Amino acid sequence: MTDTSFQRVPTPSVPAPDILRCAYMELIVTDLKRSRDFYVDVLDLTVTAEDEDAIYLRSMEEFIHHNLVLRRGEQAAVAAFSYRVRAPEDLDKAEAFYTELGCEVIRRREGFTRGIGDSVRVQDPLGFPYEFFHEVEHVERLAWRYDLYTPGALVRLDHFNQVTPDVPKAVAYMEDLGFRVTEDIQDEHGTTYAAWMRRKPTVHDTAMTGGAGPRMHHVAFATHEKHNVLAICDKLGALRLSDHIERGPGRHGVSNAFYLYIRDPDGHRIEIYTQDYYTGDPDNPVVTWDVHDNQRRDWWGNPVVPSWYTEASTVLDLHGRPVPATERTDASEMDVTIGADGFSYTRKEDEESMPSWKQGEYKLGHQL
Amino acid sequence: MTDTSFQRVPTPSVPAPDILRCAYMELIVTDLKRSRDFYVDVLDLTVTAEDEDAIYLRSMEEFIHHNLVLRRGEQAAVAAFSYRVRAPEDLDKAEAFYTELGCEVIRRREGFTRGIGDSVRVQDPLGFPYEFFHEVEHVERLAWRYDLYTPGALVRLDHFNQVTPDVPKAVAYMEDLGFRVTEDIQDEHGTTYAAWMRRKPTVHDTAMTGGAGPRMHHVAFATHEKHNVLAICDKLGALRLSDHIERGPGRHGVSNAFYLYIRDPDGHRIEIYTQDYYTGDPDNPVVTWDVHDNQRRDWWGNPVVPSWYTEASTVLDLHGRPVPATERTDASEMDVTIGADGFSYTRKEDEESMPSWKQGEYKLGHQL
Amino acid sequence: MTDTSFQRVPTPSVPAPDILRCAYMELIVTDLKRSRDFYVDVLDLTVTAEDEDAIYLRSMEEFIHHNLVLRRGEQAAVAAFSYRVRAPEDLDKAEAFYTELGCEVIRRREGFTRGIGDSVRVQDPLGFPYEFFHEVEHVERLAWRYDLYTPGALVRLDHFNQVTPDVPKAVAYMEDLGFRVTEDIQDEHGTTYAAWMRRKPTVHDTAMTGGAGPRMHHVAFATHEKHNVLAICDKLGALRLSDHIERGPGRHGVSNAFYLYIRDPDGHRIEIYTQDYYTGDPDNPVVTWDVHDNQRRDWWGNPVVPSWYTEASTVLDLHGRPVPATERTDASEMDVTIGADGFSYTRKEDEESMPSWKQGEYKLGHQL
Amino acid sequence: MTDTSFQRVPTPSVPAPDILRCAYMELIVTDLKRSRDFYVDVLDLTVTAEDEDAIYLRSMEEFIHHNLVLRRGEQAAVAAFSYRVRAPEDLDKAEAFYTELGCEVIRRREGFTRGIGDSVRVQDPLGFPYEFFHEVEHVERLAWRYDLYTPGALVRLDHFNQVTPDVPKAVAYMEDLGFRVTEDIQDEHGTTYAAWMRRKPTVHDTAMTGGAGPRMHHVAFATHEKHNVLAICDKLGALRLSDHIERGPGRHGVSNAFYLYIRDPDGHRIEIYTQDYYTGDPDNPVVTWDVHDNQRRDWWGNPVVPSWYTEASTVLDLHGRPVPATERTDASEMDVTIGADGFSYTRKEDEESMPSWKQGEYKLGHQL
Repeated sequence: MTDTSFQRVPTPSVPAPDILRCAYMELIVTDLKRSRDFYVDVLDLTVTAEDEDAIYLRSMEEFIHHNLVLRRGEQAAVAAFSYRVRAPEDLDKAEAFYTELGCEVIRRREGFTRGIGDSVRVQDPLGFPYEFFHEVEHVERLAWRYDLYTPGALVRLDHFNQVTPDVPKAVAYMEDLGFRVTEDIQDEHGTTYAAWMRRKPTVHDTAMTGGAGPRMHHVAFATHEKHNVLAICDKLGALRLSDHIERGPGRHGVSNAFYLYIRDPDGHRIEIYTQDYYTGDPDNPVVTWDVHDNQRRDWWGNPVVPSWYTEASTVLDLHGRPVPATERTDASEMDVTIGADGFSYTRKEDEESMPSWKQGEYKLGHQL
Repeated sequence: MTDTSFQRVPTPSVPAPDILRCAYMELIVTDLKRSRDFYVDVLDLTVTAEDEDAIYLRSMEEFIHHNLVLRRGEQAAVAAFSYRVRAPEDLDKAEAFYTELGCEVIRRREGFTRGIGDSVRVQDPLGFPYEFFHEVEHVERLAWRYDLYTPGALVRLDHFNQVTPDVPKAVAYMEDLGFRVTEDIQDEHGTTYAAWMRRKPTVHDTAMTGGAGPRMHHVAFATHEKHNVLAICDKLGALRLSDHIERGPGRHGVSNAFYLYIRDPDGHRIEIYTQDYYTGDPDNPVVTWDVHDNQRRDWWGNPVVPSWYTEASTVLDLHGRPVPATERTDASEMDVTIGADGFSYTRKEDEESMPSWKQGEYKLGHQL
Repeated sequence: MTDTSFQRVPTPSVPAPDILRCAYMELIVTDLKRSRDFYVDVLDLTVTAEDEDAIYLRSMEEFIHHNLVLRRGEQAAVAAFSYRVRAPEDLDKAEAFYTELGCEVIRRREGFTRGIGDSVRVQDPLGFPYEFFHEVEHVERLAWRYDLYTPGALVRLDHFNQVTPDVPKAVAYMEDLGFRVTEDIQDEHGTTYAAWMRRKPTVHDTAMTGGAGPRMHHVAFATHEKHNVLAICDKLGALRLSDHIERGPGRHGVSNAFYLYIRDPDGHRIEIYTQDYYTGDPDNPVVTWDVHDNQRRDWWGNPVVPSWYTEASTVLDLHGRPVPATERTDASEMDVTIGADGFSYTRKEDEESMPSWKQGEYKLGHQL
Repeated sequence: MTDTSFQRVPTPSVPAPDILRCAYMELIVTDLKRSRDFYVDVLDLTVTAEDEDAIYLRSMEEFIHHNLVLRRGEQAAVAAFSYRVRAPEDLDKAEAFYTELGCEVIRRREGFTRGIGDSVRVQDPLGFPYEFFHEVEHVERLAWRYDLYTPGALVRLDHFNQVTPDVPKAVAYMEDLGFRVTEDIQDEHGTTYAAWMRRKPTVHDTAMTGGAGPRMHHVAFATHEKHNVLAICDKLGALRLSDHIERGPGRHGVSNAFYLYIRDPDGHRIEIYTQDYYTGDPDNPVVTWDVHDNQRRDWWGNPVVPSWYTEASTVLDLHGRPVPATERTDASEMDVTIGADGFSYTRKEDEESMPSWKQGEYKLGHQL
């Protein structure tokens, strides 16, 4: 098993592959029909291909074969976080990079899923199943097919989010892999609670969230506008599936994006996301948020529900076995911000100016 | 003082005034400068007039003098719920109607506020200070002044919402006054928890919410689109005033409107509201919601915070004295829907089909 | 045939029926299948009922049987402009009102279309086939059915628009029928080019447009938001039906609404419309626009295409015969505003301040 | 002067600078106060700095000093198309690249404008004044400052658009400079009318439009959502400046973005633009549009006004002298698509199926 102890992951002597972007996630689902109902009939993702064991889905603006694979399995889990690399030779680089790190590496010229060619899968130093590929079947980019759009149309895969116990360790390794930090959450003691990292010039291709890991926190799809996110909520309500809504909709402080978190029939968390900002300059300013700032996770100060902090999906190793999670030893963001032992502020050093009618303390953060 | 015991209010023998619509609310605020900052600089209402004691505000599409009066006072309260009537002679009708009901009635030819002429104020049978007027100063309708619009522009006063202990009693009286019910919330025993009533053909000009009353639950302004509501949240965040957001934004089940509840510096509750539906036909179907339906108050099943159920503004009698509130004796909506003694469902008769990942029970309704 | 000479229509001695709102239009279409493709598959109206001869359609928020009837016929035309009245006895009033005017009046207890009961049809003094009804079959109001909404969902029938040679004559007659003018277009000589009139408190239930008539200019459906209008354009593009777009999208000066005009397969003009304003007060300010104001028809100054001024649908008499159109003798709006003989301004008395780069005169209004 | 004859520009032997993105344009304006009114008070760009001779403006999400410089001058023109490069050493590369091409090259360590350091300016082989820089003063990224947003807020500089007589020559040179084509417009004879090219992964950082050049066609700013674009139109109407709207709003076929073209007080053309798609993969599919496709420039088939094809801004050489334009010798897009000698189709090979009511031919494309 991969070493997840709390030392730094060494920097390989060989160059990292040139990663373009997060490209797709492979989810293991326990009832393929039920998951199809959710992702195809409720979320309106487009089916590129399907068979008895798997469904290959894409978003409206995608031209590669898929952004999501739903594969039938015994236990809900994540089988791969897959990134596209710039050129075929980047697969050799990926192979060498992870081999030097002592990770298990499997290369399969015919790919691990339909529609995708030569691929490298590794269990990375943090325990996550990472994939890299370049060759891919092109399919119709449906961007202009407004006859197919629905009110909540998902147009792009935007990012992954991973749970890992030691965020600084994870960040250092990801920087070696070529990622750049765009934003993070810290406290006054220097503890880092989460970090956002990008290859494409958005706020992130993946984020590291502090917690017991390796686990998958969420996978996020983008819409064009905010009303598209609201339309997904409205549709879930109409279908009497509103209990799939876990958190939001709201405006993030981190990333400045508009968001919604929903849970699929297996509990995999999906974010719907729109309107972060361009980050492609090398000196793009890193935004560091105070963990006690009540607007960091929701710009409107709406409470983060506890399940959002505590629940996440199991990830699999390259042989399909669940990877056991290691607990976080640093302070947890939930503990330091909610309840008797934690605190949050809306205006730093301004607690006594809280309006008098606020003494009813209607916010969840005050109640728990 | 008005009788608020739990008998039916008698139906007057004289005709009711012909009410056009809710027109303005007069709020007593304890710090006029602080309230001005909130309503003018944050919510971008337009100042029609102001002096040392009061500020007269209107929305972008209004052509009468004001939709809101902020008046300086010792204690935060509501001095008037004001309705416009169709013709001057409707004031005579209002006077006769309430006199027959034994209410205190004051008529003032020069009006009670700037910009408004001949007016009747009463303390109605439920204890609320109601006003009726027809004569009013016209001001510029700013509808076409897109140089003045802001991202969260409020375009109309939409409705009032009142807290009263006995909702059926209140409804019967309001029907005598010419209002029609459009939606309500009941349980299987026939208890009514709230009712929405209209004169203009929207879902309501006012609603009756069951609870200790007479108190004012909220006053609501409409925006054009949903993104305008979100812009208000974003601006509150930018100003580090996000703790003024009490509940939402969300989609109501009742009314089908998109909503946000905020609290002003005195704790008066303001709703921002958009996109309910036409109700002007006499046989407009009344929608009755089950109090246990988790989507009645928020179509997305997001929890109603307790303060929303319990807090409301004091109302004044015609002499500026706070009207004591009478407790509700029927079951309270909060008690029957939240926590150990209450319950809510998303899919009726379907509790065991709740997805397994829901056992973490992330919704507030399950946690309290 | 009805008298359409240019005298005033006399005011009947009997009261007018109490009209609630425009309720539906009956269109004669020459290829029912082709029209179904357009209204159901492209515009996403909901089919309440259909048979070999007719299709009954409604919008998402409607609870009466239909807002549009498509009936198979030899020649594209309009068979009825139908209004709902407040009570059954208003049909007696309608009968008496039009009988006194000398119009042909037919009353049919079983209604003229499916889903509707006792009805009065008349050929009115302007030559239009008007219908009045109260009894109607209720159907599901789909307002909450977000699983059925599409990006361009039409939520209400908003208004009709009629072409008639003598606008002041038409307005006077409609005022006798209980309508109120909300806006109009005039010139400095007092010629009236068009007028908007309402029963429900929006800008209009119908408008009178000056031109050869009686003809039907358009029927308008409302969306919730502006992006819904744009989505219809995008879908027409995706289906390679963009030549159905005649004018817009744009912002009207008159009504302040956001608009789009499309043409159905027979050339019947449909407006998509959103966000006008409340007009329900009896002293609602009437807005009069100068015919030479370039922003009256399009607030952004975009040109009105000539077909929009000249083309309109034939209307039928009560026996299904086309009603011949009488030419307008007053000046035509197109002639006075476009081309060599007409003029428009953006800033009155400010022609010489036109920016220098404007000498290329890119606007259509300058080119024709 | 630079060679603009119609041979291929040779490919330099030295590497191209690594360009990040289009960063700012320097415009010469004839009345600085009048231009300030337009860009600051109407378009709501943020002033980073200003003095008697120049105003430095940026968009809401920008963190570098400016995206637009307005500089006072005798004749309206463009002084620089400026690109940011990845690293300081890319300036050496730019210097070498253009020196080898025989272009005039000026390097200024202190920069050519406030806020920007070491810079290279060249008159490129097509005659355009191009600038490259890396060092820049950081300023506050206003992305979270929702208290400062206006309804039409511009959030990013998106792209430039240049007019040049020989598009394939221009494209080949730009590919040598590291740009990639994402879309283009061609005819069946292989004539290329326009091409879109990118460095950042959007549809373009600049486009080449066929016509007499070198001239500047437009500079484009992005909004978050489509309603923001409409808000700019509405505001121009309210200020009686609607004649600054030249074309649109509409949906582009090319790029799939929502657009508006306005003209500033000197006639410089500004595009407001939102929602194109990700193009960052090296095998991103190139979309080639048929010049006769009526939906290529406007997806809704709305006509392109002639001025949009014919008018453009003069560009200056490095000494501030206007660069004379060379005429295009290939067919012009306007000529082949509009009027007696040109044609456009909505459905290829489908002219006779045009609906009968279309015989009025209301579209401008049919009229001119």
